[in-house]
Amino acid sequence: MSDPQHSAGARARLLLSAPDRPGLVAAVAEFVYRHGGDVTQADQHNDEEEGMFFQRVEFRLEGFRLSRAQLADAFAELAGPMRMTWSLRYSDEDRRVAVLVSRQAHCLVDLLGRWHSHELPGRAVLVASNHPDHEALVGHFGLPYHHLPVSAADRPEQESALLSVLEQAGVELVVMARYMQILSGRVIDRYPSRIINIHHSFLPAFQGGQPYRQAFSRGVKLIGATAHYATADLDEGPIIDQDTARVTHRDGVADLARTGRDLETVVLARAVRLHLTDRVLVHGHKTIVF
Amino acid sequence: MSDPQHSAGARARLLLSAPDRPGLVAAVAEFVYRHGGDVTQADQHNDEEEGMFFQRVEFRLEGFRLSRAQLADAFAELAGPMRMTWSLRYSDEDRRVAVLVSRQAHCLVDLLGRWHSHELPGRAVLVASNHPDHEALVGHFGLPYHHLPVSAADRPEQESALLSVLEQAGVELVVMARYMQILSGRVIDRYPSRIINIHHSFLPAFQGGQPYRQAFSRGVKLIGATAHYATADLDEGPIIDQDTARVTHRDGVADLARTGRDLETVVLARAVRLHLTDRVLVHGHKTIVF
Amino acid sequence: MSDPQHSAGARARLLLSAPDRPGLVAAVAEFVYRHGGDVTQADQHNDEEEGMFFQRVEFRLEGFRLSRAQLADAFAELAGPMRMTWSLRYSDEDRRVAVLVSRQAHCLVDLLGRWHSHELPGRAVLVASNHPDHEALVGHFGLPYHHLPVSAADRPEQESALLSVLEQAGVELVVMARYMQILSGRVIDRYPSRIINIHHSFLPAFQGGQPYRQAFSRGVKLIGATAHYATADLDEGPIIDQDTARVTHRDGVADLARTGRDLETVVLARAVRLHLTDRVLVHGHKTIVF
Amino acid sequence: MSDPQHSAGARARLLLSAPDRPGLVAAVAEFVYRHGGDVTQADQHNDEEEGMFFQRVEFRLEGFRLSRAQLADAFAELAGPMRMTWSLRYSDEDRRVAVLVSRQAHCLVDLLGRWHSHELPGRAVLVASNHPDHEALVGHFGLPYHHLPVSAADRPEQESALLSVLEQAGVELVVMARYMQILSGRVIDRYPSRIINIHHSFLPAFQGGQPYRQAFSRGVKLIGATAHYATADLDEGPIIDQDTARVTHRDGVADLARTGRDLETVVLARAVRLHLTDRVLVHGHKTIVF
Repeated sequence: MSDPQHSAGARARLLLSAPDRPGLVAAVAEFVYRHGGDVTQADQHNDEEEGMFFQRVEFRLEGFRLSRAQLADAFAELAGPMRMTWSLRYSDEDRRVAVLVSRQAHCLVDLLGRWHSHELPGRAVLVASNHPDHEALVGHFGLPYHHLPVSAADRPEQESALLSVLEQAGVELVVMARYMQILSGRVIDRYPSRIINIHHSFLPAFQGGQPYRQAFSRGVKLIGATAHYATADLDEGPIIDQDTARVTHRDGVADLARTGRDLETVVLARAVRLHLTDRVLVHGHKTIVF
Repeated sequence: MSDPQHSAGARARLLLSAPDRPGLVAAVAEFVYRHGGDVTQADQHNDEEEGMFFQRVEFRLEGFRLSRAQLADAFAELAGPMRMTWSLRYSDEDRRVAVLVSRQAHCLVDLLGRWHSHELPGRAVLVASNHPDHEALVGHFGLPYHHLPVSAADRPEQESALLSVLEQAGVELVVMARYMQILSGRVIDRYPSRIINIHHSFLPAFQGGQPYRQAFSRGVKLIGATAHYATADLDEGPIIDQDTARVTHRDGVADLARTGRDLETVVLARAVRLHLTDRVLVHGHKTIVF
Repeated sequence: MSDPQHSAGARARLLLSAPDRPGLVAAVAEFVYRHGGDVTQADQHNDEEEGMFFQRVEFRLEGFRLSRAQLADAFAELAGPMRMTWSLRYSDEDRRVAVLVSRQAHCLVDLLGRWHSHELPGRAVLVASNHPDHEALVGHFGLPYHHLPVSAADRPEQESALLSVLEQAGVELVVMARYMQILSGRVIDRYPSRIINIHHSFLPAFQGGQPYRQAFSRGVKLIGATAHYATADLDEGPIIDQDTARVTHRDGVADLARTGRDLETVVLARAVRLHLTDRVLVHGHKTIVF
Repeated sequence: MSDPQHSAGARARLLLSAPDRPGLVAAVAEFVYRHGGDVTQADQHNDEEEGMFFQRVEFRLEGFRLSRAQLADAFAELAGPMRMTWSLRYSDEDRRVAVLVSRQAHCLVDLLGRWHSHELPGRAVLVASNHPDHEALVGHFGLPYHHLPVSAADRPEQESALLSVLEQAGVELVVMARYMQILSGRVIDRYPSRIINIHHSFLPAFQGGQPYRQAFSRGVKLIGATAHYATADLDEGPIIDQDTARVTHRDGVADLARTGRDLETVVLARAVRLHLTDRVLVHGHKTIVF
């Protein structure tokens, strides 16, 4: 019997990786079908060099004969013998996002605008910043604004405050929307593959500070932006998306920064969307983006 | 027992479309698995508006327990009740391609160079042209060159000659590499979804003749190129790939044409590769490109 | 003696077109130099087909020995015999912009955000709309919101109201930020080459209504956006800027519209910037963008 | 009187840099005009940070009243007091180019094809390689092929042979079309800003060897190619042009290399064209590309 819990239109999304072996595709497809699901999208990737298999399966829940709890249990039974690493999410979950920001507000404004007009999945539940500047703006969108100034001395205290704010709000994804502070391993380990940062260069070019200044000095003809998961190694996290734009000798550092802001905004929003539609699978320090 | 016919590394590629229904994915996956195949890539598309399902499945043949003839028969039994339209190809087939060209040789040279250095699948078996210009060049690549001049009066005769040349050479794909003659329905019907044309504009903008002249007159800031299957409606065939490049007021018609040649070359080569790796599924006047 | 009117850093911008003849470049350069100006940027374009010359010259005013009134008079004397069409603007002018919008607010929000953070030259002085939806948002940015609903019957009255609002606010540039009403010749003639529209396709492809629906039906692999000056011939105005983005068979009409909104936003902002830095010269139905 | 040496349509191209000061633009424009030249294109760049002025001026020579020798002398008189660094070239000069290549022939084939069809200015006069592979191909284009194998022991001898070949052929531009040997300072110093290399990454990302392998390991979502002048510091030379292309997790190292070859080909050809139309001005370790 269909679980009344499954709202009309809701879909399950399965992300999995496993050592490759024949029958994986069939086993998953058969599992979904046997319980009354209807696969609406399935993508797979076989890394033949590493012998790994990755898959994203999305299926309709109308008519599905297992509850969500049963589904997880049943799939665990299938997954175990096949040594799958997997996660199961639902399109109708309430996915709570925190945005961290410093002085520059372009990414913040863009993201809040997108959530406001229902262009992005998930929803922002709070904004935290080491600057007080954006309190009024954020208030206008009806969100709490946590001003958490950071100095060398009180970084640990502020990170504790930040962690507590995130936890109380039930945040599952943290977006560093040009947040110019480095998060310590303590924060990063609490949100593995769940903190997205936008770096204002085409990584791995111009790591570290002032990438537009570096790009200007090097005389590049393209600048870039990179959205990646934050890891302990700064600027080395798994890349989710990147883009570039053409510049010329006429562009000073300020022009590069201005052109770059449009790139950062769009690339970060794309990465947040990919994450919240469960399209990103992290494997080692790389991503598979379905 | 494994069919000795299956060479090491050979893969089968299944392209199919069907009215959508639960169990399609599972049925195909289970079919491959049951006979000893190992799915290496699977892509699907559900057109929810039309209720159609499209899939491309690639699987290893080492250890596969059906011969190619048996495989086709067995799959037909599965496909019938599910009302699938399908095709089955093998990565080690000899795929014979003819290139048609007029005066401008950039696409021809590029394609022959790619085949020569094994960058493209398939192989060219002949070049035909309404001009004698490229005979020496084509001869250098060891290919026959058929000079078939076309005038209003003898078009039917020349098309008969062309068809006979194509047939004798066992051609399955015809590439119009800036062939500036219109093929009649007689030729097109013989090679449905197997004639690829490169149009030198971003279709549907600038249909018909002299698109760079049209683009110049309109003052566009981007020009484009479009690879599509030839159909009876000129410039209306299913689009396989497109791309654009930035231009400015400084670019005269000749500059647009020059910039455009690089676009045409790359877009046409991409389309030929997509076709010959069985990644393009035509549905109505659109394509699904896996 | 230097005119005290010339504020530090202010620059004059001269845009001119003329029938081409030797000596034009020298005459303008010599004029600026003789009066104490320092050329900081000069771009020219010779349309050899039409025999026309176009130029943009920017020069520093510190130390310039003519007042702005004198400058205009003196340049007119030079320009007359050379049959120049020209305009002279200053980088420190107060350039007042009106934004027209309908239901979709993405371009409006983006533009207001840019002006707010001083990313765009000029300044918005009012927003007018045929819908009441954005009043609160616009109020938050401290701008008046004119709700001017349009129906077939009262279009002339509403256009009169719009013209009166624009005139009273001293508006020089009107930005149609996804304003879905057609402006009559009466409005367009009052603001020649001073109304910028964003069309949500790569013109001239998909003119008219519902371009994303059209793009979906045609199965294109790229979508586009076009910023152009509004003219009496809808969608035929001189193009200022365009851009495209890659899409696939997976993108439904709603996906195309979403991807397209990012394009529209960026392309429109670029066009507004180009106009307000006096980089766009209209010649016939084309633009020269310096 | 007009110098009969000036062929119809020939143009002079002046590239200059100088410490910025008022009157530079006027002085050059007046100089050209006074001697009967007609400026067809003029671009300038003011680096306000460094206080430097850069300009490219192209002018018609029909009716010009100085011979080429006189023109150089006369301009030197103007340039000296203004501390200009300058060069003067003519559109009808015979510009002799050598192409260096190793195993991979895609850039070589592309360049020879372009010269063959008169798509590129200049002309190839020889090809040199550390491999014998391309002798037949190059012979087909009617060019001498110098096989100069390089080993650690005989590098100095081979470079001497290379220099002698270049000198005897009167080569002014050397194009490293995927030449995988490092040229010593002895060669580079003989051709300052006249050796163009194509690096198969988006510099400064992935310097050094095997950039596609590096890109694969890092999991980037875009790959790139960079054309730059060769300098003693490998991969640090002034960048002329760059471009990028989108890749995904599905692309293995071989796929990245294949996609990259199209980028390399187009970017290198653009750089060669820019150089041979005298549009590139080197300043320090950066370029101004007019």
